[in-house]
Amino acid sequence: MIYLDNNATTKLAPEVLEAMLPWMVDHYGNPSAGYRFGKEARRAIDTAREQAAALINAHSPEEIIFTSGGTESNHLALASALSWLPPDSTFVSSTIEHSVIHEWLGAQAEKERLSWEQVSVNEDGQLHLDEWSEQLSRSESRFATLMWANNETGVLLDVEKAAAIAESQGAYFHSDAVQAVGKVPVDVQSHPMQSAAISGHKLHGPKGIGALWVNRHSRLHPVLLGGGQENNRRSGTENVAGIIGLGKAAELAQAHIARREEQQGLRDRFESALLGEIEGVEVNGTTEPARRLPNTSNLYFPGVDGEGLLILLDQAGICCSPGSACSTGAVTPSRVLTQMGYSRARAKSSVRFSLSHLTTEDEVTEAITLIKEAVKKLQIVLPTGSRVVGPRR
Amino acid sequence: MIYLDNNATTKLAPEVLEAMLPWMVDHYGNPSAGYRFGKEARRAIDTAREQAAALINAHSPEEIIFTSGGTESNHLALASALSWLPPDSTFVSSTIEHSVIHEWLGAQAEKERLSWEQVSVNEDGQLHLDEWSEQLSRSESRFATLMWANNETGVLLDVEKAAAIAESQGAYFHSDAVQAVGKVPVDVQSHPMQSAAISGHKLHGPKGIGALWVNRHSRLHPVLLGGGQENNRRSGTENVAGIIGLGKAAELAQAHIARREEQQGLRDRFESALLGEIEGVEVNGTTEPARRLPNTSNLYFPGVDGEGLLILLDQAGICCSPGSACSTGAVTPSRVLTQMGYSRARAKSSVRFSLSHLTTEDEVTEAITLIKEAVKKLQIVLPTGSRVVGPRR
Repeated sequence: MIYLDNNATTKLAPEVLEAMLPWMVDHYGNPSAGYRFGKEARRAIDTAREQAAALINAHSPEEIIFTSGGTESNHLALASALSWLPPDSTFVSSTIEHSVIHEWLGAQAEKERLSWEQVSVNEDGQLHLDEWSEQLSRSESRFATLMWANNETGVLLDVEKAAAIAESQGAYFHSDAVQAVGKVPVDVQSHPMQSAAISGHKLHGPKGIGALWVNRHSRLHPVLLGGGQENNRRSGTENVAGIIGLGKAAELAQAHIARREEQQGLRDRFESALLGEIEGVEVNGTTEPARRLPNTSNLYFPGVDGEGLLILLDQAGICCSPGSACSTGAVTPSRVLTQMGYSRARAKSSVRFSLSHLTTEDEVTEAITLIKEAVKKLQIVLPTGSRVVGPRR
Repeated sequence: MIYLDNNATTKLAPEVLEAMLPWMVDHYGNPSAGYRFGKEARRAIDTAREQAAALINAHSPEEIIFTSGGTESNHLALASALSWLPPDSTFVSSTIEHSVIHEWLGAQAEKERLSWEQVSVNEDGQLHLDEWSEQLSRSESRFATLMWANNETGVLLDVEKAAAIAESQGAYFHSDAVQAVGKVPVDVQSHPMQSAAISGHKLHGPKGIGALWVNRHSRLHPVLLGGGQENNRRSGTENVAGIIGLGKAAELAQAHIARREEQQGLRDRFESALLGEIEGVEVNGTTEPARRLPNTSNLYFPGVDGEGLLILLDQAGICCSPGSACSTGAVTPSRVLTQMGYSRARAKSSVRFSLSHLTTEDEVTEAITLIKEAVKKLQIVLPTGSRVVGPRR
């Protein structure tokens, strides 16, 4: 198997499993307990909090709130703001946010709990900053949210400028940094930000754990109440092993980030080979490789049915994605790609490949061959430019 | 170490860890993915859903929604109902609900999003059914929530009658079954219920995973939106290993429940020894052993500072709790005990011991000796009946 779907989820690092196991086997005490057996879990959580804080250069570990994942982290930032912002507030997002944010804002807007303005992106997948500025200059715009990197195209959004504009207009600025953290440097002190969402399983940590970074000067109204865990900001018995795993993954990620040029080199080789050897292939999103995550390649294969290609590639042992893993099963083309101005036909002929530091040179070489073969099979069946569904076998 | 705090959390069963490991190591695919490597995770989740459904005799596995734990499960049931019930609805609970439910209802009532009526309990810890009936007979009472078993005293609430009354009044009935599931039979078809909360780590499953059972005829408005996982009822990449672990724990729990009389026998021996050999010791909650969880013993040690006793017992290697683990650090006496009519002094002189099927005869014998010694030390220092804080060393 050649796993090229690391934006969907990643392989747990062996060091992470090793760090987690003691907390799954022998040291099972409840961190809220008063006895030593519980306090040792409490201390281990403190260490993990430091590791997570260090990865994103938080001011202090206390700014980290552990959650059950990226979805809950983003939800917590949004729901918290909704609870303390004035009732007539406008929430400003981009049109290409992850469905977590997109659907939540849509649902609240429908119930008239907030106003929602979406700022469009250009064909490169980059935010229209003038439009962003214009939306935020309206006095009722009090919450701005922009992803750090897009999950489908890997495009790195201009968080620096977007955050500065939000600050100048007095708006709260949240970033869904789930796809960026662990792949590129994310420094929450470098921009004027209030919160950022992190997911464990996107950076070779476990599934079912995430974190919300909240600026120590920002308000946070909890959603889950009860036991008062996480300094009263997220109740519920701590997922101790998961937290330890996220901490360890955060520590290990520093090395991967430092070597991201190697990662990008491998991705670029993969991408160049397909662009050069299959006629008509194009990158979705900016063609500047450095303006994208170093691991992501979202490619358009003209005249090839994306779903059909995925099936052939699955048979050949390659895991990749038609966009976001979450949207599988849905027949609609990617919202991200269509919002970038691409046609529905192009969106349906596009496939996302996402590498990791575990991806080898040999795997990339083999993947190139297998993808070329699969595309050729589909192109034999279908005339170039056609949008008929590919073979099903 | 003698671990007598199984109502706080339990040791992960080795079989559960074994079931989880493949999904943490090799089979890390995203269950939402379209390729085989993802679909195998999807199928494993389906099996776990069947296992969880079987434990509580759900009508079908689809009634199980996996969450991040008991706190989220309870929150989901409550928040869902709040979103679709009419604005003037009254939520009726008991005075001894877990803080998850208690604090959430309190917070919503404070914001005037709902009315909240609490029904009191008697000295046995049992619900006043006449009061319950009276509250629910008011037309605006549309949501009733009652825990299946109390976490501090182990008292089994009269869910059967409470649910029947709620049904007769047309109210939604939710039960926080977190402490009961895995210890006693919980059959969601035996009473007219709409939803029930389950936690993995309370039944020798992993921390960070739980489930909400929702009757197939009941409405459920999701809180976490986005990827559409859990049949659009709880978005977020699935905690695959955690779910597999909860499933396996649910399967194993059937055997423990079948042997609950043995469990109760051991608990009764423990309790009788302390009642008989230390002067003045009394049980908090009903003295009918069968009306309590078979593993729980909440005891009053007259004249003994509970916190001091916990410190001595910790030094002696015994883990137990001053009430609910979640409330550690707080100086207020247990709300549950004071709501049962006990004095603050009694609450502060009370300790909860909770066994599991892993607790051995020898451990119980040794614990009895060590508890007697510790109590004697504290009683030497303090005259009987005094409420002065015990020695701190």
